[in-house]
Amino acid sequence: MTQRAIGLGIVGLGRAFTLMLPTFQADRRIRLAAACDPLASVRARFAQDFQAPVYEDVAELCADPDVEAIYIASPHQFHAEHVALAAQAGKAVLVEKPMAITLAQCSQIVDIVAQTGVPLIVGHSHSFNGPVLHAARLLHSGQFGPVRMVSALNFTDFLYRPRRPEELDTAQGGGVVFSQAAHQVDIVRLLLGGLASSVRAHTGQWDASRPTEGAYAALLSFTNGAFATLNYSGYAHYDSDELMEDIGEMGQRKAAGTHKNTRLRLAQTNEAQEAKLKASRNYGGTDYQAPAATPPQHHQHFGYILVSAQQADLRLTPDGLMVYTGDERYFVATPLSEIPRVEVIDELWSCVREGRAPVHSAQWARATVEVCLAMLASNAQRGDIPLHHQVAAHLAPQA
Amino acid sequence: MTQRAIGLGIVGLGRAFTLMLPTFQADRRIRLAAACDPLASVRARFAQDFQAPVYEDVAELCADPDVEAIYIASPHQFHAEHVALAAQAGKAVLVEKPMAITLAQCSQIVDIVAQTGVPLIVGHSHSFNGPVLHAARLLHSGQFGPVRMVSALNFTDFLYRPRRPEELDTAQGGGVVFSQAAHQVDIVRLLLGGLASSVRAHTGQWDASRPTEGAYAALLSFTNGAFATLNYSGYAHYDSDELMEDIGEMGQRKAAGTHKNTRLRLAQTNEAQEAKLKASRNYGGTDYQAPAATPPQHHQHFGYILVSAQQADLRLTPDGLMVYTGDERYFVATPLSEIPRVEVIDELWSCVREGRAPVHSAQWARATVEVCLAMLASNAQRGDIPLHHQVAAHLAPQA
Repeated sequence: MTQRAIGLGIVGLGRAFTLMLPTFQADRRIRLAAACDPLASVRARFAQDFQAPVYEDVAELCADPDVEAIYIASPHQFHAEHVALAAQAGKAVLVEKPMAITLAQCSQIVDIVAQTGVPLIVGHSHSFNGPVLHAARLLHSGQFGPVRMVSALNFTDFLYRPRRPEELDTAQGGGVVFSQAAHQVDIVRLLLGGLASSVRAHTGQWDASRPTEGAYAALLSFTNGAFATLNYSGYAHYDSDELMEDIGEMGQRKAAGTHKNTRLRLAQTNEAQEAKLKASRNYGGTDYQAPAATPPQHHQHFGYILVSAQQADLRLTPDGLMVYTGDERYFVATPLSEIPRVEVIDELWSCVREGRAPVHSAQWARATVEVCLAMLASNAQRGDIPLHHQVAAHLAPQA
Repeated sequence: MTQRAIGLGIVGLGRAFTLMLPTFQADRRIRLAAACDPLASVRARFAQDFQAPVYEDVAELCADPDVEAIYIASPHQFHAEHVALAAQAGKAVLVEKPMAITLAQCSQIVDIVAQTGVPLIVGHSHSFNGPVLHAARLLHSGQFGPVRMVSALNFTDFLYRPRRPEELDTAQGGGVVFSQAAHQVDIVRLLLGGLASSVRAHTGQWDASRPTEGAYAALLSFTNGAFATLNYSGYAHYDSDELMEDIGEMGQRKAAGTHKNTRLRLAQTNEAQEAKLKASRNYGGTDYQAPAATPPQHHQHFGYILVSAQQADLRLTPDGLMVYTGDERYFVATPLSEIPRVEVIDELWSCVREGRAPVHSAQWARATVEVCLAMLASNAQRGDIPLHHQVAAHLAPQA
């Protein structure tokens, strides 16, 4: 690396930042330049840890000339406002998924990116995972013939992890459609080329004490004739990581009984304690534990994903791709970086320093949010929802 | 057993009979009393093997007073006609799935059963498999709370097995929707209570040389609020028996490379040879091998099936059920009979000798065919197809 690191300002030092921090710290292309958070104690921790300025107000952060790019990890419903502030200040943007929770907000972001010309990518999402990008590149190369079908399944304890009240309110972007389908849809779109044409879905709200969508089943069709089933339960007793060699979503070796323990912990917590519990485990919280600096052993993943092309089926694993063709079955390892989620920084770097168009652009992310909103609408209206904002996936050639 | 065996007449000594023969031979409640088939050589073989009369004509078989029940295993499109002949002769009927290939034919069968009062069950189908019935009984008991969702997945080499031309013609009941969804839908309906309300589906015809449906993805909704994803590929390079401990559909330990070998064999065969190849491996054919008399080591299955209830997820295995609850994960073995597909004879016996109502009745089977037809219609019309002939599952208490 001969060019200088990107000075990154952080908006929101919560859960998403906590999960991205190991990446920012490990990747020399990133320098943590400033942060903004409503909580004074967390700001103080950041200032001390990174010897960097902290702000109460997003506009102040955006005015900091040492900040070249801004990572927006505020709650979903504030993304559009915060992206606008950053873009108007001429900063590059990395904004967490879901990009926003309404199509109007998404379109605002698309427009502001067009007007200001700032680089913007949306992530992290699990469509950045090495094996997903690897599979997409192989499929898009055409070597296996046309893509036909994806089967995606993920059964987790999502709904029983500690939550802020808004995370259990669909109107505020809560529930598994906004938080989890955002991953699964992004992956499926990337594998099948991006241009979904319609959605039919059922969503499940099966726990009155957590009154938002906790499960869904969706059928997506694509303009190229491909289709996909997406199935998710965040109420699960079953753990579909059984199908992923007992490697968890974050690429970690998983202990048995994870789902049971999540429920048990929650049962010992009242509502007031729950939001605190969540906060306490985030960066700057009383129970925060900085992750070990050991490099990842496996890729992150989002459950069982099988993609069928004319001449091969590909099954994504935490280590790469199992490829099944007419002649043979073979495993192709996806190279693993020492930096977790390095693919996010790869894409940010390629936009900010190399001027390339992003894969996970604002238009791309709007298309994924459109599918998620269509899932909710399909469940309500009991029919297909046609899609109008889809864009094709444009993957850069492998570096 | 103190009562006499059921004298069974066979209509059609083809593939379905070949697969049921081990059951008929092993179960002392069945006596092979007569058979009917258009092929003289196969009739001769049956006459010799079982010292029983054979007929060229179904009506003659139906007139045989030694025949108490008739197993109808003729090609799908003849089922309605053959059931009518049997029922009008007062015979009990076991008819292969799919019961018929149009709703009108199904309704004819429902009507003739009502008019004649003969016992009729539809099978074998994989919803007779021990673990399916076991799971359904546990779920219907309510001990896990309301049923919510099923995820069903099966990737096979179905389309590349030797076929008669009509099996590759949807109009004649060919393709995976009639032959394979008939299993998967029956299982899902049984697990979720039976009363499907609508279907949305996509079907895939991806091989011009085998011009019928070879794959599908379907979303079913039920009147009790449950829903299901059903995903099937008969073009698969991948073998989803990987998820079933490498136990195949028939409960057999499976060698690696099965799908590859199926394709290789077919590539060495021309169209004329193909139908002969199929026939040659059936009962009475030149390559027919009577199955070893060793009792089954595992239950038969139809791929990966996960069913979610409010308080537990159940995963069906070739040996029983893996149950995941809030407290624990445990395995419940499903007792294995020494007789393969014994559950079919259990149900036939309970209808014919004990006068009980069947689970797999004509109404039940019509409802499953309705779903299959709705899958084809949904793909053509690109929308939900409402269902009007659904009936609830009524499982007898465990014997």
